[in-house]
Formats: sequence, structure tokens, C-alpha cells
Amino acid sequence: MNPHPTAHDIEQRMLALLASFLHDPDTVSHLGNGTTTLRTVREEALWSSAGGKRIRALLAYDAFHAISSGIHSADQGHAMSDDTATADQSMLDLACAIEVYQTSALIHDDIIDESAVRRGRPSAHRHLSDVMADRRQGSGLALMLGNTLATASVAIAHEALSHLPNTEAGTRAFLDMQHAVQIGQMLDLSLERMPLDSPKDLVTAAMDVDHWKTASYTAMAPLELGALAGGMEPVRARRLARTVGTPLGLAFQLYDDLLDIVGSSARTGKPTGGDIREGKRTVLLADALNLADEPTRIYLTRAFTSATRDDGTITRVMAIYEDTGAIDASRRRIDTLLDDSIRALHDSGLDAETIDALSHACSRVVPRTTNRGRSTSGSRTSPEHHDGM
Amino acid sequence: MNPHPTAHDIEQRMLALLASFLHDPDTVSHLGNGTTTLRTVREEALWSSAGGKRIRALLAYDAFHAISSGIHSADQGHAMSDDTATADQSMLDLACAIEVYQTSALIHDDIIDESAVRRGRPSAHRHLSDVMADRRQGSGLALMLGNTLATASVAIAHEALSHLPNTEAGTRAFLDMQHAVQIGQMLDLSLERMPLDSPKDLVTAAMDVDHWKTASYTAMAPLELGALAGGMEPVRARRLARTVGTPLGLAFQLYDDLLDIVGSSARTGKPTGGDIREGKRTVLLADALNLADEPTRIYLTRAFTSATRDDGTITRVMAIYEDTGAIDASRRRIDTLLDDSIRALHDSGLDAETIDALSHACSRVVPRTTNRGRSTSGSRTSPEHHDGM
Repeated sequence: MNPHPTAHDIEQRMLALLASFLHDPDTVSHLGNGTTTLRTVREEALWSSAGGKRIRALLAYDAFHAISSGIHSADQGHAMSDDTATADQSMLDLACAIEVYQTSALIHDDIIDESAVRRGRPSAHRHLSDVMADRRQGSGLALMLGNTLATASVAIAHEALSHLPNTEAGTRAFLDMQHAVQIGQMLDLSLERMPLDSPKDLVTAAMDVDHWKTASYTAMAPLELGALAGGMEPVRARRLARTVGTPLGLAFQLYDDLLDIVGSSARTGKPTGGDIREGKRTVLLADALNLADEPTRIYLTRAFTSATRDDGTITRVMAIYEDTGAIDASRRRIDTLLDDSIRALHDSGLDAETIDALSHACSRVVPRTTNRGRSTSGSRTSPEHHDGM
Repeated sequence: MNPHPTAHDIEQRMLALLASFLHDPDTVSHLGNGTTTLRTVREEALWSSAGGKRIRALLAYDAFHAISSGIHSADQGHAMSDDTATADQSMLDLACAIEVYQTSALIHDDIIDESAVRRGRPSAHRHLSDVMADRRQGSGLALMLGNTLATASVAIAHEALSHLPNTEAGTRAFLDMQHAVQIGQMLDLSLERMPLDSPKDLVTAAMDVDHWKTASYTAMAPLELGALAGGMEPVRARRLARTVGTPLGLAFQLYDDLLDIVGSSARTGKPTGGDIREGKRTVLLADALNLADEPTRIYLTRAFTSATRDDGTITRVMAIYEDTGAIDASRRRIDTLLDDSIRALHDSGLDAETIDALSHACSRVVPRTTNRGRSTSGSRTSPEHHDGM
């Protein structure tokens, strides 16, 4: 009755919403010079928005359907009405707004990390710097592109929410999501500065970053926004996001870190071992430092406090992650987090059908990494439905 | 009956609103390292918010009172009621939201321009880079601080607007304002790249930048938001912003450019001639290129295409601005724009009392620069109520 949108549907709608939000360069500037710059940024806005897996939008949309079906079937039997169609379309737009915000966050993240590649093509600041043949100007335009997408995401969400239940709470939740990611980005910069001689603190700090920078908008906000749009009371929606979404979002990031080691470049759009090359301080690294013998710990510490890491170092670090059991430890962490998430869902007080639908939606975010877990993730054990932050 | 807030009142309220929006660092991070970073950024958020003249908030607040008094006196006589007190407080918060957004825009502007000083103290990215002893990390934190304040400004505006008329239109106008400034910032980067051999194009491009980057949030948005909050229909409020606010905001920026030449450092918080030092392509420069003889034009072009400009060059360029009549030309432009603004106000169809109150509010934004103008600006001919973007 409600055909669920695909990643492709979401991307098409994102592009349409963005094209309608952005001013037409020809109406803004009186001169070719300004128009050309604005057109370049507009093209980059659309380019940057392409190629994601849209798991956040899909989770939000699925949560909306699970919750609203539950609420409606409790109220009354109902056929597909005009109202339902309007709500479906508005929810699609709200789901797109989360993805538009993600694009904004990724563009700023790449500026801060000086990353050259994103989703297999030049990052926005790098591409704009090339076009302008000026790094400062290109980075400045990318900063503004990120800001434009952040503002666009609020405008799209605000418009969509005006046709859905819990309009005010939804707008607040959307802004809370933005602020959470900002905090996560700041904590990430702080994590870079930590000494490596205290692996337990490193685990805590890396999990804090994963919580604020990733779980917030990957699982918590999609669940909260979908539930609010589906008619759930704000306090319950927030609790669902916290209890179910937090462990799910953390599992997502740990799985993303694993993929960087065991995934293939073609699948993730990033070269394998990229996190190691960038010196990223992951929970994997912290676990390896914890589990390693003294000479290996010294080797890891030297590798991650050097300015750069070459191919040989990356290969050796990947072997250390395997040999110390850090990879197995991450797999266990992921399974425990997924168990926590499912348990919280079963304790949520929702009816069995809604729980089942939400459980299925959550299982699309992170596949089970071992065979010991519950069967809720079904046959989805391949990591195809996955991209980075 | 309605005691109007001072710049000090606005700043105090801004700080209270921000302190309540920002998460307490102790509740966010589990580790001293992250907490320290968040506390540093929080302090910078409050510091960066101090010291402005708050002309935008005052204009919005005054416009609200002019419009709502007109509407209420047309409806009925009314005494100070609880509703009025709530509306006043909400309008104060909405006015603060504009200033919080300005702080965000200034922090990003300083990152893009690599400016070291703002309001007489180190700019946010410079200060954070010093504290972190790392330029990339400091700039990254400043970028996120700017984002945090942009999100905070929407959250504050959204909450305030929920207690005022035209809630939806007000939120849209606030987001439009953000997007206008983003466009202005992109056009400003484009202006840097223009050749200097076509001064008329340079005037057009500089005015485009002044329109989108400054007039938008300095005069247009404050008038529109104040009018909406005062109960004016959205279409009329938008027209008032466009017809009265655009020329007023342009006059503000031209006056700001003049102050950089004829103002004193103590008054503006910036060294005199700072725009020339930075190579800023102002309407003043374009007028001087237009009016200068051939050798002077060649000198100006060389000066503004060099990587840097020393004190001697700055002094000579300032003399050229005076001698060519560029300064007089800017004064005439300002007067014409202020005439346009006042004429639009008189053609607005508002009642005489409201026009008078709005006219007084506008006169606080830009003083008359010559004696030939109308007397609407009263005795306010000193540039004290003025700061840069």
C-alpha cells in the first residue's frame, strides 16, 4: 500500500528539493563573474549530494511507517487517503533533509581533515580549489556550500514538518541533531590531541566521538524524526532514539571502522586502510593498543604519532589489528550494541507488529558481523548497505 | 510604556540565550580532554558575542514596536497586558537571534579572509589556533563554532517566533536571511577575482556583494522580522524589507567603507585603512578608478593587484580616494540611498505615526553624511552607532 522509496528515489527528491531551494544564479548576480562562481557552487551542491546509500533517510522513513501504521491500526482501520499521501510525501522530504544535512557535514569534515577524496571523487573543497585555481578561495566556497546545505536542510525539514504531527518538536529535534554533530566534530579534533599511552581513555574518547558525531544523525535523529512524524509523543520518541538509536548508531560506526580494514575499496569508495593512513584514532586502534605486547604497542604508538604512514606501515597495522584480536573485539562490541538496541526495542512498550517493523528497519543499518547474534538481521550480512560518516 | 532595550540589554540576553542553548561540557564528554576543548569553544562563543553595537537587533525591535503599535491602535486602544509583555520578550529574543547569526557569519568571514583581528581582539580562529597551538585544529574549531552559532540562531528564532504572529513566515524569513549572506560571501570571493580595468563592472559587483552579504541581514531581515512579529502580512513585510531595507542596508555598507578611511581606529575597533591593507574591492575603489587620471589609475591597479600594501601605499590610496572625489561620490551615493529608503517608507501605505517611528528607527542605522539631506536623521550625524559586518 505504501511503496517504500529506494535510495535512488531519495536522491532524486533530494536533488529536486535542493534545486528549488538554491537561488538561480542568473537572478542573483548582475555580472558574469559572480554568476559563474554561483553556478560552479550550485553544480558542486548537486554533485556532492549524489552517491550516498541513504541509509539515514531509509531508517527515518521506515520508522515513520512502522510507528504511524501502529498508531493508525490502533485507532481505526484506514484506507490510503489524501492525508496519507501528503504525509508520505512530507516524510520523504523530511528524510531527504537529514541527507542534505549529512552532505553539509561531510563537506565541512573534509575541509577540517584536509581530505582529498569523498565517495570516490574529489572532495568539495578540493574540487572547488581546482576550479578556482586558488586553495583559499576554493575552501571558502566549500565552507559556504556546507553552510548553504545546512540552511537548506532546516528549510526543507521545517516545510515538511508543517504537514506532519509534532511540528515544533520535530524542528527542535532537527536542530538538536545539527548541534550534536557540531559537538562530535569538536570532540574529534580533541581526540587527535590525546596521548596514546592510555588505551582505555582512548576507547572512551573514541566512543564519545562516535556517539555525538555519527550515532546522533545516523540512528538517533532518524528514529526520533520518523517517530515524531508518525505521531509518537515527543518524550517517547526521544526515549526511543536514545535507547534504540544510540547503540545502533555506535554499532554503525564501529562497523564502518571495520570495513576500512576488511572491506574493499570498490565497495566503500575509499582505499582500504584509509583510516590508518589518516592516523584516525578509532576504537580498533585503542583495542589493539590495549591487547598488544610491549614492542607492538611501541610500534603502534610511533606509527600513529608520525606525520604520515606509508603503505608498508598500513599493511603491518592491519595485521596487528587482526593478530591482537582487536578486530574480533570490535565484532563483539558490535554484536553487544545490536543486542542492546534490540532489547531496548522490545522493552519500548510498542506493539509486536511495530517492534517487528522497526527491528527490520534497524537491521538494514548494520548487518550482524558474527553468527552468534539473534536472527533479527535476517540474511543481510553483506556490508553493501553501508557508507562512511 | 515599552522601555526599549539598549545594546547592553541585548548583549546580556544574547549571552543568556546562548548559555542555555550550548550543552554543558561536563555533561557531554566523559574525559577531561574533550571537556577542556568544549569549554574553550564555549568561552569563545560568549567572547565572540560581546562588543557589537547591536544595530540590527535594535532595528528589528524598533520595527516591531512601530508596526505593532500601529496595528493595535487601529484595532483598539490597549493597555500593557500579559500578552504584550510576552510578545516584547519574544521579540527581544528574535532580535538576539539576528545578532547570534551575525556572530556566526563574522567568525566564518574571518576564517575565509584569514583576518587576525575582530572588534579589537584576536579573531575566533586566531584565538583558538593560539590556544590549541595548532592552526588547522583551531580553524576547525572556529568553523564548528560558527556552525554552532548558526544553528543556535535558528533555534532561538524558532522558539521566539512560536509566541509571535506569522510564526511560519518568520522562520522562512530567518532562513532566507542566512542563505542571502551565504550567497553574498560567495559573490565576495568572486569579486576578489575580477580584473580592475572595468571600474563600472566593479561598482556593480561590489554593490551586489553589499546587497547580499550586508544589506540582507543588516536592514532587510530586521525590518521583515520586526514587521512580521508586529503582525504585518508576510507579503507586505517582504515588500517593506525590499523597498526600505535594501537601500538602507546598502547605505550602511557604503558608510562602513567610508568609516574605514575617515573614521578613527578607537571608534571602529579596526585600524584606519584596514580595507585598503586587505585589498578589499569597495565601491570607493571602483569610484576612484573611474574618476582618476591614467597614471593614478595605473598606480591603484598595481597597488590592489600586489600581494600586500604597506603603510605608505595605504596613506597614498587614502589621499587618492579624497582627491579623485571618490569619497564625495560615496557620500552622494549614501544620501541618494537614504532618500530612496525614506521615499519608499512614505509610499508604503502605512499610517503617519508608524512611518515616523520607522523613519526614526532607520535613522539610527546610518547617519546623514552631508547637510543636504532631509532632516529625518535628526541630530544623529556622528558615526558612533556603527560597526562593520
